[in-house]
Amino acid sequence: MKKPNIVVLGAGYGGIMTTVKLQKSLGRNEANITLVNKNDYHYQTTWLHEVSAGTVHQDQARIAIKDVVNQHKVNFVQDTVVEIKPEENKVKLENGELDYDYLVIGLGFEPATFGIPGLEENAFMINDINSSRLIREHLDYNFAQYHNEKEKNPARLNIVVGGGGFTGIEYVGELANRVPELCKEYDIDKSQVRIINLEGAPTVLPGFDPELVEYAMNSLEARGVEFITGAILKESKPESVVYEKDGKLVEIPTLTTVWAAGVKANSIVEKSGFENNRGKVQVRDDMRAPEYDNVFVIGDCALIMNEESGRPFPPTAQIAIQQSATVAHNVAALAKGHSELESFEYKPLGTLASLGHNDGMGVVFGNKKLFGWKATFMKKMSDNRYLLKLGGIGLVLKKGKFNFFY
Amino acid sequence: MKKPNIVVLGAGYGGIMTTVKLQKSLGRNEANITLVNKNDYHYQTTWLHEVSAGTVHQDQARIAIKDVVNQHKVNFVQDTVVEIKPEENKVKLENGELDYDYLVIGLGFEPATFGIPGLEENAFMINDINSSRLIREHLDYNFAQYHNEKEKNPARLNIVVGGGGFTGIEYVGELANRVPELCKEYDIDKSQVRIINLEGAPTVLPGFDPELVEYAMNSLEARGVEFITGAILKESKPESVVYEKDGKLVEIPTLTTVWAAGVKANSIVEKSGFENNRGKVQVRDDMRAPEYDNVFVIGDCALIMNEESGRPFPPTAQIAIQQSATVAHNVAALAKGHSELESFEYKPLGTLASLGHNDGMGVVFGNKKLFGWKATFMKKMSDNRYLLKLGGIGLVLKKGKFNFFY
Repeated sequence: MKKPNIVVLGAGYGGIMTTVKLQKSLGRNEANITLVNKNDYHYQTTWLHEVSAGTVHQDQARIAIKDVVNQHKVNFVQDTVVEIKPEENKVKLENGELDYDYLVIGLGFEPATFGIPGLEENAFMINDINSSRLIREHLDYNFAQYHNEKEKNPARLNIVVGGGGFTGIEYVGELANRVPELCKEYDIDKSQVRIINLEGAPTVLPGFDPELVEYAMNSLEARGVEFITGAILKESKPESVVYEKDGKLVEIPTLTTVWAAGVKANSIVEKSGFENNRGKVQVRDDMRAPEYDNVFVIGDCALIMNEESGRPFPPTAQIAIQQSATVAHNVAALAKGHSELESFEYKPLGTLASLGHNDGMGVVFGNKKLFGWKATFMKKMSDNRYLLKLGGIGLVLKKGKFNFFY
Repeated sequence: MKKPNIVVLGAGYGGIMTTVKLQKSLGRNEANITLVNKNDYHYQTTWLHEVSAGTVHQDQARIAIKDVVNQHKVNFVQDTVVEIKPEENKVKLENGELDYDYLVIGLGFEPATFGIPGLEENAFMINDINSSRLIREHLDYNFAQYHNEKEKNPARLNIVVGGGGFTGIEYVGELANRVPELCKEYDIDKSQVRIINLEGAPTVLPGFDPELVEYAMNSLEARGVEFITGAILKESKPESVVYEKDGKLVEIPTLTTVWAAGVKANSIVEKSGFENNRGKVQVRDDMRAPEYDNVFVIGDCALIMNEESGRPFPPTAQIAIQQSATVAHNVAALAKGHSELESFEYKPLGTLASLGHNDGMGVVFGNKKLFGWKATFMKKMSDNRYLLKLGGIGLVLKKGKFNFFY
């Protein structure tokens, strides 16, 4: 009997956890497992706002794939996916092609710019390790440049973050911690620097409990963050950003606009012809694509409706990690010739937002609200728990967050 | 009797050492001493190649003026000199004016670009703390940008240093140490990076002993530095540099051209009408300007002929520090009403060049050649000796160089 080929595309939260689970549940004689990823590392997307601010180094936020994937059991291919051909059970890569019997698509997100002029050219995005450390260096560079110009340019010190959702808020929280350090490094008076958060909705963190939103805004405003709500970003220019509020256009001079207001599924999914809903595959209960019995979709490329609210579950690390249990179970079952598949059921474990490294807020255990250091502590514990699941205690010690109280 | 006003312009090597010596030799009832400087810190110009490479942090290379100048004895004015009016015994500052009875001009150097097109706009200069940390950040930024572009741009990884004199050679030496770190930080293959030194003369370090020059070139080439000698820089463009060699024009794509091939005296000296020789005041034996009995000139703004060679002594920290003893003695003598002034006599103590933090070469004790770690050790000891003279053992411990063997 021929061993089935299992191919996992992407080593994000969903892909890497599926791979790690499969290498435990399938013997070397039961299947060939191949993991494809652009980089030779997995990274913590939920820590990228810290990398982008320069408060966490990228090497803490990424994990070498060889450190968590057993190379005796899994074939790792470092390459970029160009197209999936589900009719032919093939994946086209930049430098080759792979055949599969079972496929797991975990190709993550792309930024969504909604056609706003100039965003793609002029704004920075918190996408991945490369783009995040670039933002960090861009901040440093502008602060360093400030005193080298006879005519001081305030645009160098105005940091505009588009989007007051989860990422935008967590990012301005890190900036509030980082800016005083940058000011010290480059001899700049802190009062010269502006951190501005633009949000289109009437309030930041739409959908969050109002008490939590108020806590976050107070904490961040006390540390110098300015919020402009009800502000629609109209254009990003090389040296400014334009928004509309109350029918009026306002221009802020800035060399640093960070766009954190929207993501969409990797466009390869749509390009490859999968039935999709705004680019995402609305998966069956067992996490398979509707049209293909051997193709699973996980994480940001998958869409699952929340029956209660009638809206899709948001694309989070938490849901991708939970989905990996179902996907890994079902792939292993099919590979072993079983036909009974599990259904995915989402168990919300709460949501915690950091507001810089020493403050935070959120909800855990269903409806318990947490504020301040308790929230930060729980969030760091949850980050460490993920590392434990992914690579054991060694990985927690190597990449975990232990700066609980300072 | 009216206390005389002593004004020292500039807190470089010459100015700060003169001030520190004056505060020891003159009582508070004997004179008013005022030190004027643009920044509230003194910096080690001879360490700026390290700050520019990112191998030494600017805070190690600078010293708060209040840490070495006694504020009970010296009035420190943080301001920029606009013009000296020696006929009126006045100094015009950006934010005020000072009267003096005795003046010490220690205003340092400016880069000399010899009218080469584009240099001022497009090249970086190792001038001061601001410009040096900007170069460091510029390198970081370009390395960070490299993987964010679909079309990889080699100009981001080509570093061109114009000038194979002392500063240029010391700078490429630091780069040879720094580039592997940058490659690691930004996931770049070291073989993609070029460090190119352009020198117009047939050899780098013209005037140095040929054995030392060969040692330096071998050491640096072994660490990846490319030397192009007999190459005249013709133009610096935003994305390239053009040089002429053997009658042919060659263009190197680069976003980083560092110009380290010439300095001139601060142009305020010439602008203020002093009799000068290419911008420098050819001082009398007692370090006074020829036309004014109450004006001393020190360091890079002063010109002293070497009788043996018939050429001026080069502008170095060593000579400025030695001059400060003569200047401080003579200013104090005049302030006390004496008329016997000392003559300056230069005692060459040797010349040591670093080639990165763990290699170096040079001459000490008249004609003893040193290579490798011995040269580095001696150079670091000499740096520490300066700190000892400036601010005592406390300053040595705070800002000294103790990484002798790694």
